[in-house]
Amino acid sequence: MLRSHTCGELRPEHINQEVTLCGWVQRVRDKGGMLWIDLRDRYGITQLLFEDNPASKELLEKARNLGREFVVAATGTVIERFSKNDKIATGDIEVRVSELTILNPAKLPPFLIEDETDGGEDLRMKYRYLDLRRGAVRKNLELRHQVARHTRSYLDDLNFIEVETPVLIKSTPEGARDFVVPSRMNPGEFYALPQSPQTFKQLLMVSGFDRYYQIVKCFRDEDLRADRQPEFTQIDCEMSFVTQEDVLNTFEGLIRNLFLKVKNIDIPEVPRMTYADAMRRYGSDKPDIRFGMEFVELKGEDTDLTSGKNFGVFDSAEVVVGINASGCASYTRKQLDELTEWVKRPQIGAKGLIYVRYNEDGTLKSSVDKFYDEASLKQWAEAFDAKPGDLMLIISGEADKARKQLNELRLEMGTRLGLRSADEYRVLWVLDFPLLEYGEDEATPGSGRWYAMHHPFTSPKPEDIPLLGSNLGKVRANAYDMVINGVEVGGGSVRIFQKELQQKMFEILGFTPVEAQEQFGFLMNAFEFGAPPHAGIAFGFDRLCSLFGGADSIRDFIAFPKNNSGRDVMIDSPSTIADLQLKELSIRVAKS
Amino acid sequence: MLRSHTCGELRPEHINQEVTLCGWVQRVRDKGGMLWIDLRDRYGITQLLFEDNPASKELLEKARNLGREFVVAATGTVIERFSKNDKIATGDIEVRVSELTILNPAKLPPFLIEDETDGGEDLRMKYRYLDLRRGAVRKNLELRHQVARHTRSYLDDLNFIEVETPVLIKSTPEGARDFVVPSRMNPGEFYALPQSPQTFKQLLMVSGFDRYYQIVKCFRDEDLRADRQPEFTQIDCEMSFVTQEDVLNTFEGLIRNLFLKVKNIDIPEVPRMTYADAMRRYGSDKPDIRFGMEFVELKGEDTDLTSGKNFGVFDSAEVVVGINASGCASYTRKQLDELTEWVKRPQIGAKGLIYVRYNEDGTLKSSVDKFYDEASLKQWAEAFDAKPGDLMLIISGEADKARKQLNELRLEMGTRLGLRSADEYRVLWVLDFPLLEYGEDEATPGSGRWYAMHHPFTSPKPEDIPLLGSNLGKVRANAYDMVINGVEVGGGSVRIFQKELQQKMFEILGFTPVEAQEQFGFLMNAFEFGAPPHAGIAFGFDRLCSLFGGADSIRDFIAFPKNNSGRDVMIDSPSTIADLQLKELSIRVAKS
Repeated sequence: MLRSHTCGELRPEHINQEVTLCGWVQRVRDKGGMLWIDLRDRYGITQLLFEDNPASKELLEKARNLGREFVVAATGTVIERFSKNDKIATGDIEVRVSELTILNPAKLPPFLIEDETDGGEDLRMKYRYLDLRRGAVRKNLELRHQVARHTRSYLDDLNFIEVETPVLIKSTPEGARDFVVPSRMNPGEFYALPQSPQTFKQLLMVSGFDRYYQIVKCFRDEDLRADRQPEFTQIDCEMSFVTQEDVLNTFEGLIRNLFLKVKNIDIPEVPRMTYADAMRRYGSDKPDIRFGMEFVELKGEDTDLTSGKNFGVFDSAEVVVGINASGCASYTRKQLDELTEWVKRPQIGAKGLIYVRYNEDGTLKSSVDKFYDEASLKQWAEAFDAKPGDLMLIISGEADKARKQLNELRLEMGTRLGLRSADEYRVLWVLDFPLLEYGEDEATPGSGRWYAMHHPFTSPKPEDIPLLGSNLGKVRANAYDMVINGVEVGGGSVRIFQKELQQKMFEILGFTPVEAQEQFGFLMNAFEFGAPPHAGIAFGFDRLCSLFGGADSIRDFIAFPKNNSGRDVMIDSPSTIADLQLKELSIRVAKS
Repeated sequence: MLRSHTCGELRPEHINQEVTLCGWVQRVRDKGGMLWIDLRDRYGITQLLFEDNPASKELLEKARNLGREFVVAATGTVIERFSKNDKIATGDIEVRVSELTILNPAKLPPFLIEDETDGGEDLRMKYRYLDLRRGAVRKNLELRHQVARHTRSYLDDLNFIEVETPVLIKSTPEGARDFVVPSRMNPGEFYALPQSPQTFKQLLMVSGFDRYYQIVKCFRDEDLRADRQPEFTQIDCEMSFVTQEDVLNTFEGLIRNLFLKVKNIDIPEVPRMTYADAMRRYGSDKPDIRFGMEFVELKGEDTDLTSGKNFGVFDSAEVVVGINASGCASYTRKQLDELTEWVKRPQIGAKGLIYVRYNEDGTLKSSVDKFYDEASLKQWAEAFDAKPGDLMLIISGEADKARKQLNELRLEMGTRLGLRSADEYRVLWVLDFPLLEYGEDEATPGSGRWYAMHHPFTSPKPEDIPLLGSNLGKVRANAYDMVINGVEVGGGSVRIFQKELQQKMFEILGFTPVEAQEQFGFLMNAFEFGAPPHAGIAFGFDRLCSLFGGADSIRDFIAFPKNNSGRDVMIDSPSTIADLQLKELSIRVAKS
């Protein structure tokens, strides 16, 4: 080793020892007769001391010429520090240097290597290797390592076996776009990179592996919205001879274990909510339950407190639904106008926002006073369980749309009222998702068909199977999502394990029998040779890490992320390749 | 859970308990009044008992109709077994079944699901999910999981941090062929799949991560020789502020730890041998040191015991070199002729084989008696340290070729003499590899240039740097391989960490400055911002697992391997893709 200790290791008990440290020059403070250097490595910072005395003129001069981020080795004696620094673990000591070696000089970095840096996103991504030197970024990757470690340890202890599934697989038309890889040895043919190891993990169940997991890279060639990456990592799991209940318990255990081991937080038993309930109460299949503000219906399937007052907007609406922003009665007209504009933005798309103020003096004031008298508003306030000081915010219209819009408003109000702290964690299971959803390719009107809400291998609830012939939209799946703080971190399902049901499913999804056999024949054939009942789940590992780190962006938890155009600006990839390569691969570039 | 216990769990202490087991029907033995079923899962086999009595007619009938590999759940009472089976862990008990559920029937598998199967390679690969059911194959993957687990645990304890590097990177011309991935969002541009995370792990050192590892998939588009896979797994590691000695010690520790934890074998300190020594003593840079039979030179740089006897073959040879096959003097003429034919096969390419028999009566008999008298042969025998009963086998010719041929013969003799047991493990470090080797593209005569023997990032030995200007072939690298039983399982090097030296290296390898900057500019730029001295190693994980499993083929240790044409015959990949996909990717198929 070029060092005897790391920069995070020395303590008072090392005083008088001769040590050698290696690291980067974080800071030089030159007081003329004395000079201090903060020497940094992954483990910490240690202060080096250089004194001006006749014997060490040359040494001091050498130290004086060091720049930021020079890599040096320094040998010297550990001494007690005159003014201690209780902010760092090595703050009680410093090293009086007797020998200094410059291992590598450094040009001035293009931005400050500090937690608070002056470098913009683009610059930091181009010099990602310097960005990764910053303590804040390094800690994110250390956290990621810990999450992976404890995930493996928990699953290993439960007899799960990690199996590596292939990366070069077969392209399938269902789901998102595949990345493909031309095969040189099989001209005109292509591998695809996996969007998930779904079929392989099911085959492992058919093979009797009983409990499988893998922390695995997956790939999706999607137009990248903010915070999507073309390659991402999953904790992928599957179990045999289990019910949905067993999967929920096993992976609730995983998450609680991770919170305990990584964050030292004891998460209580995870509550469960059906998809139908989540949509009704929060207008979202991933409700943030750190705060209440649940939806209240003034008009809907079971209630109507708004009709017959000649207010056309409500009269023509399928639903009238609102939330109670407790304590917000004092919102000014300006604030309410701004909120109204906020919900009317194209991203939200509401036509308007109705408010009812429950004044501190007990009176009610609304934006629809023209149509609704005090008695009506009183009724509404009761429905909202409102009290003086509260503000009711109401949206109306077509049921699904109105709920989605109100969901956005609810989250916004939660944020504005400080009810969504990144340090508070609320975990939730959402259950009983619909098996199918009807969709249409936007480019092709009339192209509507049924799509699998989770994926084509998800099992309908046995009691709903009869509906497969009659009412596809009503069929519920044994599918489940784990939601933390309003973010879906994982999802899974009980799988189909009988060939006939799987065939039926492909048929519903618009596959011809030939297509189904061509794409997924290997799986349906496997089901004929003794497939066990099985179920599984996958967690978005990058997202999970960012939640544990209390951050919004997954990019900060990936060592070398790509930008929104799918580029790695550091290595400048993707790039053109040689004509010879193209020729060997039997392909040609054909830009349209 | 659909089961109360696994099929490997029940013991005499469970007698009289009611249990439910799930698994696959391995075997049905029907004795008329009684019927036994071996029920199998990943954890073991448990015997189920069905008795013929009035109350259970229907149950017995149901059991009678079960076929091999049916998936069933059976409930019943644990009882003591009449005739115990000490070959299985559950052999003391059986379960008297009271309830039987067929969870999924099974067609008759195309081959026997037993350790010794009747299925050929092709059939087993097509139905890999059934092949994986066989205990022998399952144990290989369980072993793989254990090797990964203990690797992580060892490295975690030494403060290594696992960092995921990207899979979609940039194509580089150095090394083997890249698999490439067309970028839809960047028409005409391509990602490449990594042959190793080499540059990224070096950048992580520049970032100060200090100790990195990753168990990671890598990709090489090579013509597949037997036992190569287009995707394979590496244990990839890198350390900062270390010397070669530190790397050797750290990873010798890893291997010894793995042998202890996974195989319960205490490997002694690992011996070291220079590349030059290995070539001289064994004619190979990965000698199998489970047995001796070291090379003896009769003619070479330092010795000549053959010239001046008018034997033209030896007189014109650069070297005359042989091995002593101890105890083989009794080989018949026929056996010796067969050995001679063996070395003359094109794969070996020797022109012939000379033998000297040291008979039990002390006389010497050779195939060159015409040229060499008893006194000469006696001299040779002394050089070989031969004794009565030994057989000396001698090859001559151009030095490198003769040594390579003799290496093959030595290994073959070791095998024939039973000196290469798969249960015996001899680990070896080979050091001081040449930095460069001269090569020529076979298709282009005169295209000769210097190639990096390890890779372009390997550091020359500091004392050999002056030779870079004058004698490239003599420059040794700080590069090392770990060899187990004659198989290279890992290799690495101390890296270049200064921009100038790295530039010089690219220049020697025939890169123009522009090409070097274009391909590896990000790395050389990184070296300017404070790169620490660093070194690393990578192990072939598939190969390591096959060695631990005592097997020759890596394919048996990969869940879903590809065949020699790079095909996955189970999922039938690679395959053609839709025209729309090609169009979106801005490429066209252009078969030549």
